[in-house]
Amino acid sequence: MADAAPGSLEQGLQTAKDGTWFTEVSSLWPGTGLALQVDEVMFKGRSDFQDVAVVKTKAFGTVLILDGAIQCTDRDEFSYQEMIAHLPACALPTAPKKALVVGGGDGGVLRELARHTSLEQIHIAEIDGMVIDVSKKYFPQMAVGYSDPRVKVHVCDGIKFVQDAEEGTYDLIVVDSSDPVGPAEVLFQKPFFDAMHRALKPGGIVCTQAESLWYHLEIIKSLAAMCAEVFQGGAVQYAFTTIPTYPSGQIGFMICTKAKGEGSPADAREPRQPAPGVPKGSSDYPPLRYYSQEVHKAAFVLPAFAKDALAGSLTY
Amino acid sequence: MADAAPGSLEQGLQTAKDGTWFTEVSSLWPGTGLALQVDEVMFKGRSDFQDVAVVKTKAFGTVLILDGAIQCTDRDEFSYQEMIAHLPACALPTAPKKALVVGGGDGGVLRELARHTSLEQIHIAEIDGMVIDVSKKYFPQMAVGYSDPRVKVHVCDGIKFVQDAEEGTYDLIVVDSSDPVGPAEVLFQKPFFDAMHRALKPGGIVCTQAESLWYHLEIIKSLAAMCAEVFQGGAVQYAFTTIPTYPSGQIGFMICTKAKGEGSPADAREPRQPAPGVPKGSSDYPPLRYYSQEVHKAAFVLPAFAKDALAGSLTY
Repeated sequence: MADAAPGSLEQGLQTAKDGTWFTEVSSLWPGTGLALQVDEVMFKGRSDFQDVAVVKTKAFGTVLILDGAIQCTDRDEFSYQEMIAHLPACALPTAPKKALVVGGGDGGVLRELARHTSLEQIHIAEIDGMVIDVSKKYFPQMAVGYSDPRVKVHVCDGIKFVQDAEEGTYDLIVVDSSDPVGPAEVLFQKPFFDAMHRALKPGGIVCTQAESLWYHLEIIKSLAAMCAEVFQGGAVQYAFTTIPTYPSGQIGFMICTKAKGEGSPADAREPRQPAPGVPKGSSDYPPLRYYSQEVHKAAFVLPAFAKDALAGSLTY
Repeated sequence: MADAAPGSLEQGLQTAKDGTWFTEVSSLWPGTGLALQVDEVMFKGRSDFQDVAVVKTKAFGTVLILDGAIQCTDRDEFSYQEMIAHLPACALPTAPKKALVVGGGDGGVLRELARHTSLEQIHIAEIDGMVIDVSKKYFPQMAVGYSDPRVKVHVCDGIKFVQDAEEGTYDLIVVDSSDPVGPAEVLFQKPFFDAMHRALKPGGIVCTQAESLWYHLEIIKSLAAMCAEVFQGGAVQYAFTTIPTYPSGQIGFMICTKAKGEGSPADAREPRQPAPGVPKGSSDYPPLRYYSQEVHKAAFVLPAFAKDALAGSLTY
């Protein structure tokens, strides 16, 4: 990761015969990039942490771009948000009461967690207030998550927030981070996973954004090995979802279950909670568009090349 | 599809600061396209049917491009070739003896079918001899399929070939076509499916390239409805595989099983044959890198939005 550097909107913008296109170039996926035709640059700013941009595209509606990397689009965000939230929430043997989101400033994961009526508290620790503000303005269908009364927003360093949490606080931690370059790099490192392990209840689950099997198998291997060390006696598993605007058309999740002290931990591949519906009094909520209990189980089935590569670290 | 037109290599080539990039633009995925950095254009020609190009890319090795659309790359072709061949071959209740490939001039499907030791005859009907020649020269690891003694090559119109076949000839027909624009358009239409249905043995299976759930849900819906009409009493099912260089990062397959006359047909979601190994005397064959029996089952599990959209036509 040392040779990777954050990008910018300008790096990817080019004018062609048929208008302006943004190509998502990055040292994390060298020699390849998704190109999207851009109708309008709606917002461009520089926060204390990163370049923040919002563009209107022909094919995917409004798109959030941080440091030159696509974070989410109107058209396909539901795949990522639903899967990163419901895979861990539905894998828990008892319905969760307390959840934490690290990152996730766009509000999409909050929206999905808010479907779980058992949750009493949903904390979010997002380092970049500009991402929250921009999302509330340009992505109302994701930022709707902020309007749930159980949500408590902390604009702060997620690592410090987790380190300061009381031991055994959360049933569930979702790490909705950008790529391991720039501000999110530390969210892929051991001190953060140690802190999350401590902050989880026994049997609790962490689900982190964990890149693409096709492009980042080596990063995923290292991450899995580190997680196996931290979650000893528990379980470390990997699932993925399809999503056209992430590099290679998919993104995966490292799903780590903390040991319970008695017997082996739950197998996150088996959904134990029903697929959630729409939260009370939120008739404008979209239905689930990606997640189902069948999709949950299938998401953990890895292509042969990936299963072989990760066999040493994953719990199966 | 009427407003779609075939493209060309030139349409997508652009020179940027860091060299030449090819962006795969098409009216089949307007406003979006995968960009690949190109080291060298190795071949460019015009056959009787289409533009044929081979380029060397930084990220995906050698790439075959027909009418401006990426057909296969060194690095990820195995996902497509293994899945389009083994999903139907392994779903058959009895080991297949006679198979036909329509299209598939690159030889990759032949390579995969050749793993099935039960097969006695493997026919291929490819309309474009230039694709075969170019593949033998630039893609030896796919074209290795041609060297199996059970393979018989017919350079001809696939539809006519299937119409001329005796009724009940094949256990298995794989349609490895390009997109439904240009020469492959007829391979998505009813007369061809009627002919395939006739050419199949009772209980036999057709597996056709069937686009992306994310980009082509309407095309897939029409195709499924037409297949349900043709394969009455049989089964019509849909599966997909992940592959970074196809639009949206995935591609699907329509899998149609011909009625057997007694009871309901086999459910193609259940593998009934073991994952094949390496054909006799072919020690240079790669191992399976994508397909497994677990992957087979998971490939039929569709995201909620797609399952809902196709519910009326698919057999489940």
